[in-house]
Amino acid sequence: MPHAIEWNAQHYVIDGKPGFLVSGEFHYFRVPRHDWEERLSRFREAGGNCVATYIPWILHEPAEGDIRFGDAPERDLESFLALCRDQGLFVIARPGPYQYSEMKYCGLPGWLCESYPELLARDLGGRPMVQDSVSYLHPLFLAKAKRWYDEVCPILARWTTSRGGPVAFVQFDNELTGIHEWFGGWDYHPNTMGFGREDGRYPRFLMRRYPDIRALNAAYGTDYARFADVRPADPSSPRNVCDRRRIKDYQDFYFGTVAEYARTLASWMRDAGIDCDLVHNSANPGSNAYHAETVAALGNRFLLGSDHYYNLDLDWNANNPTPKYALNALLSLESLRHMGFPPTVFELPGGSAADWPPITASDLKCCYRTNLAFGMKGLNYYVFTGGYNPDGIGGDGEIYDYQASIAPDNAVRPHYAVLKEFGLFLQENEWLAKAERIGDFRLGLDRELPRSKYYAAGDSGFGSADAWTFLHKGLAITSLCASYSPGTADLSSDGLLRLTDQPLFVASSDNMAASVQRRLVRFVEQGGRLLLAPVLPVMDEHYQPCRILADFLEGASIERLTDAYPDVRVGPAGRVHVNGGLWAASKMPSGAAAIAREETSGRTVAWKKTYEGGGCVLWLGLQWKFAKLAQLRMLEHVLQELGCPPPAVRCDNPNVWTSLRSDGDRAMLFAMNLFSSPLEAGLRVRGSDGAYVDLGRHALGPMEVKTIPIRERGLSR
Amino acid sequence: MPHAIEWNAQHYVIDGKPGFLVSGEFHYFRVPRHDWEERLSRFREAGGNCVATYIPWILHEPAEGDIRFGDAPERDLESFLALCRDQGLFVIARPGPYQYSEMKYCGLPGWLCESYPELLARDLGGRPMVQDSVSYLHPLFLAKAKRWYDEVCPILARWTTSRGGPVAFVQFDNELTGIHEWFGGWDYHPNTMGFGREDGRYPRFLMRRYPDIRALNAAYGTDYARFADVRPADPSSPRNVCDRRRIKDYQDFYFGTVAEYARTLASWMRDAGIDCDLVHNSANPGSNAYHAETVAALGNRFLLGSDHYYNLDLDWNANNPTPKYALNALLSLESLRHMGFPPTVFELPGGSAADWPPITASDLKCCYRTNLAFGMKGLNYYVFTGGYNPDGIGGDGEIYDYQASIAPDNAVRPHYAVLKEFGLFLQENEWLAKAERIGDFRLGLDRELPRSKYYAAGDSGFGSADAWTFLHKGLAITSLCASYSPGTADLSSDGLLRLTDQPLFVASSDNMAASVQRRLVRFVEQGGRLLLAPVLPVMDEHYQPCRILADFLEGASIERLTDAYPDVRVGPAGRVHVNGGLWAASKMPSGAAAIAREETSGRTVAWKKTYEGGGCVLWLGLQWKFAKLAQLRMLEHVLQELGCPPPAVRCDNPNVWTSLRSDGDRAMLFAMNLFSSPLEAGLRVRGSDGAYVDLGRHALGPMEVKTIPIRERGLSR
Repeated sequence: MPHAIEWNAQHYVIDGKPGFLVSGEFHYFRVPRHDWEERLSRFREAGGNCVATYIPWILHEPAEGDIRFGDAPERDLESFLALCRDQGLFVIARPGPYQYSEMKYCGLPGWLCESYPELLARDLGGRPMVQDSVSYLHPLFLAKAKRWYDEVCPILARWTTSRGGPVAFVQFDNELTGIHEWFGGWDYHPNTMGFGREDGRYPRFLMRRYPDIRALNAAYGTDYARFADVRPADPSSPRNVCDRRRIKDYQDFYFGTVAEYARTLASWMRDAGIDCDLVHNSANPGSNAYHAETVAALGNRFLLGSDHYYNLDLDWNANNPTPKYALNALLSLESLRHMGFPPTVFELPGGSAADWPPITASDLKCCYRTNLAFGMKGLNYYVFTGGYNPDGIGGDGEIYDYQASIAPDNAVRPHYAVLKEFGLFLQENEWLAKAERIGDFRLGLDRELPRSKYYAAGDSGFGSADAWTFLHKGLAITSLCASYSPGTADLSSDGLLRLTDQPLFVASSDNMAASVQRRLVRFVEQGGRLLLAPVLPVMDEHYQPCRILADFLEGASIERLTDAYPDVRVGPAGRVHVNGGLWAASKMPSGAAAIAREETSGRTVAWKKTYEGGGCVLWLGLQWKFAKLAQLRMLEHVLQELGCPPPAVRCDNPNVWTSLRSDGDRAMLFAMNLFSSPLEAGLRVRGSDGAYVDLGRHALGPMEVKTIPIRERGLSR
Repeated sequence: MPHAIEWNAQHYVIDGKPGFLVSGEFHYFRVPRHDWEERLSRFREAGGNCVATYIPWILHEPAEGDIRFGDAPERDLESFLALCRDQGLFVIARPGPYQYSEMKYCGLPGWLCESYPELLARDLGGRPMVQDSVSYLHPLFLAKAKRWYDEVCPILARWTTSRGGPVAFVQFDNELTGIHEWFGGWDYHPNTMGFGREDGRYPRFLMRRYPDIRALNAAYGTDYARFADVRPADPSSPRNVCDRRRIKDYQDFYFGTVAEYARTLASWMRDAGIDCDLVHNSANPGSNAYHAETVAALGNRFLLGSDHYYNLDLDWNANNPTPKYALNALLSLESLRHMGFPPTVFELPGGSAADWPPITASDLKCCYRTNLAFGMKGLNYYVFTGGYNPDGIGGDGEIYDYQASIAPDNAVRPHYAVLKEFGLFLQENEWLAKAERIGDFRLGLDRELPRSKYYAAGDSGFGSADAWTFLHKGLAITSLCASYSPGTADLSSDGLLRLTDQPLFVASSDNMAASVQRRLVRFVEQGGRLLLAPVLPVMDEHYQPCRILADFLEGASIERLTDAYPDVRVGPAGRVHVNGGLWAASKMPSGAAAIAREETSGRTVAWKKTYEGGGCVLWLGLQWKFAKLAQLRMLEHVLQELGCPPPAVRCDNPNVWTSLRSDGDRAMLFAMNLFSSPLEAGLRVRGSDGAYVDLGRHALGPMEVKTIPIRERGLSR
């Protein structure tokens, strides 16, 4: 069998066996050459099976046209690849164009940015954003980047695993859209986007979206004569629904241009003979959905992962992993799974570019185990080892220390022991690669929610950005504190219809895609039990009237209550603290039962309608941020109403979150203390007979994630 | 000697002896009456010498005109005061009008807010903010509040310490300005502020500030015919310097109205015979300077403190005290000291209104010791004990648990042990009340900086809001990580001129009050050594040209450098990471020596000019956020250039911050680990002979603040 990595929707398959991808970022151009071998060995000893490296354009093409490989140790890529092969390590090669990586010009050649200002990305006002933010599809940028790819890709093609080399994956670019979003927003370069030209990208996008200019004008409230005249609206201040449509359209268009850029780079790689799978890293847990168009464009030889940092400098408010970090990781890993990928963290912190705040060994250990608990199947420590910047490329000094496991001078830091312990843990528990998380119900994930912060921000009713916040701070955190394990379901896929075994929680907003509304109706018709909170959608994804769900619910409607001090009672939970919006039913479906009221007004704020075949819809007109224990009891009551069995895990401390993973034969319980103080918890798991097995009381130190193997086979689901 | 508390600028004097004010919030109306005595005893046993309580208007005047005391246990204020007296506990009485305290209408009577909407505060557009935000000086609100005061104040007057009672302090209102700022901004009620009336408050304020309407128009770029016509500008989007002047004027005016409200309430208290000192609590560490006008208006029988929370609900990003929390506490305590008060934290967390995230015992212990390390001389745990809301007053449920030391049902939580340990520590180390922090140099605090976030935000050069951030993230954090202890100096006071013994660091901005510029010149003329970073001011506090400092520096001027990757070298520090603005000297004073350059351009980015008499000015044209160890070496070099001796404390771990306190005879070193992981540090202090005394290596657990008594007398300063 050739040395190779394959993957499927659940896990990696390494040399034919299910296992974890354990990669470490290792920059051949920063690590002194005489240290390569020893450090690679150290990484292998720490359980690593892969290394990743940027291949900096700025370093290899110091002057335009002068592309160099192998003339100096820091440019000797092939010797490095050979050494990795000899050590049995796979390689993820990341040839840019962008690298970021604390390099000058984010890894682009200085001559490119300085001599060709016309290719810089532009803000809405037409001004360049920053000196190193380029317009991805600018013809001149593409021409220069192609010349770079024409040199670097054939080298990589010679070293792929199919040819006996170590290169298992090649990454195009880096954290796409970040270089725009962080420095001004989306790119509005008039030439790239084709403003004013009938054959421009933006006009052509609009022509595909609208049948004619009248339809566009009706949607936008404008009076453009032709598509070429249309200009995007300012995302910082949507004034009305028309502006929101324009902003959303531009965003969809922009993400489409990013996909076109990705497809272009990928095609150059293929043309050069690179035959391994391609990868890309989403910049953070919240941005995976930005890449939906790219994923669709690239097909099944492409794998998207995400970067999961918890602190990179003093502008981050928390210094250590927190429950909110863990939840973001969980939702990020689940969204990658929905896209069909083994959830991979392509940048898992190995340190930080800043020397302060400190990245500590025990925080890293907590971070790694938390990501594992919530479904990580592949990882790349960024960075495994630091080094020294070759002349002219360092954006912040000569030393690239990164608080890494192995310091530039070869000193071994305490982080290394953590990496090693974690790597060996993964080797000893390889079965976890096939394990899945056991959930009690499912949270619906709608890819539109994390994409909506620009067009749906603001005060227009309850928008999808509000729903995204509610999903985090309300539904998910309350569930985790209540010792329920929320699984997830992809609302964008008909696979949803196969998931009627467990209740589905949907954080809804005024606007919800027509296809999603339709799918939810079918879900219920097929016996699915649906919690819809806090509103009933009345518009589709384009902010056009759309009442598919409301019509199914026989014209059900709601109205917002404005009493500052409502008195809401939900079942035996007693009075529930309301720290968000509250809605009352104006019209209920026939036969629906009121299950919660606002006591002062007597208004119904939740009802349940049950259908033949077992399906039901429970609408709960309450948006909340988790703050009070009564909210846990409210959630338990709602789950009972939905016929949800008791949770798979019982943890008696709401501050300790758990995750139970099983491959069908074995199981492991992760108990997480994501606080800076010691905690204690009594833990039980539900056995195959439905009775709980007592796992005893557990003391958890600050930031400790405990793993508890479960002996009993066949856990109840 | 009568049982009494006095205070001076350094500390409290309790029954004639210097000591700490150790108060605990204890709501007689929430704690069941049969539990009062036991819980008060418990608090005394925990080292407490005082309790604080709101006296809720909403509870005592349930219907308009029906003011009740003593008719029910929860309204039996005087029995509670008698019990406190019998237990030897002082009382801080807080009769509102506002309470907040998770009460409906923030403690105002519901009838007031519901029946008199005309007295609600208004936003800039003239709309009411929220249902419980009133316009402080609205005549109708004042009339209603006066009737409440007319009943409650005479009761309190009978129980002050001068009359043998326990009431040592009475607080008017609560966290003034919060109820406006958090719900929309400053209050713009047209009647209260007097828009449109020649005799209105706002026109009269403007008449005092400008000699005539022409002068105002010149400043504002407007063409008003008369003062009565002037309207404030929108603070959310200053477009130019004229807008900034208008916003700053309105803010100063608004703070003046708050002072007028405070003076009004105080006069009613005095008229009712309350003869103890009055107090108020600033809402957070950053808002002390909002009360400058109030402090000036109320004179020397008034004491301002601040509230220092680190987490109140899941919208706070950090769950535990952090280095940034500690620094905010340090600067808050120092600013109170500058105002002439013994630094007091009137709300020091005893829990949190939210049940989650958890407030843990070890985090509380860290929080208390950190505040003590940085100068806290008085405190009030908010809250010491929870309870039950009487009918109709609870804004978020029947139970007021607050995760407090003593639960509503009398259960004793682990927090109690922390309070007790801390209380006994303060008793055992009463000398610390007189101790002061030993500093190596002083950071200049300009009260305008924390007040400037509205008018000086945005992109107009380097404003005072930028300087405030730089003071925190640049100068202060770098100093603390470099093991230097920054003292502080009040730039608004001529007391500065007596502080020429140590270097003074001033975070400067384009605008600096003329009086401050003048004072800094005199400071240098009298031998003071001044670090000015990163800019030379060119305007006064009113954004009018003002070059007092620049003129003293012989017309020195600077210009901003825009190279994206500058190469700055400061002394032997090597290349310094620049992650902020960078300025070069255009004109230097005669005889000034360049002490740092940007290497690519050769431009001078720092110079030093020394004067006869030992004074000097060191200008450093670099703004930074602390990120890299090279910045520590840069700071050390600058301190050497300024003739600063080696630091009083040497700590070899930049992640462990220290504070050394001494009363001249004894000293105590506080070593703080404000991270979630264990840390180690080697500690030394400079003895009277200048040589360092080794205190050994210390292991610090997560969130541990260690106190190390220093035996040697007469530490070197």
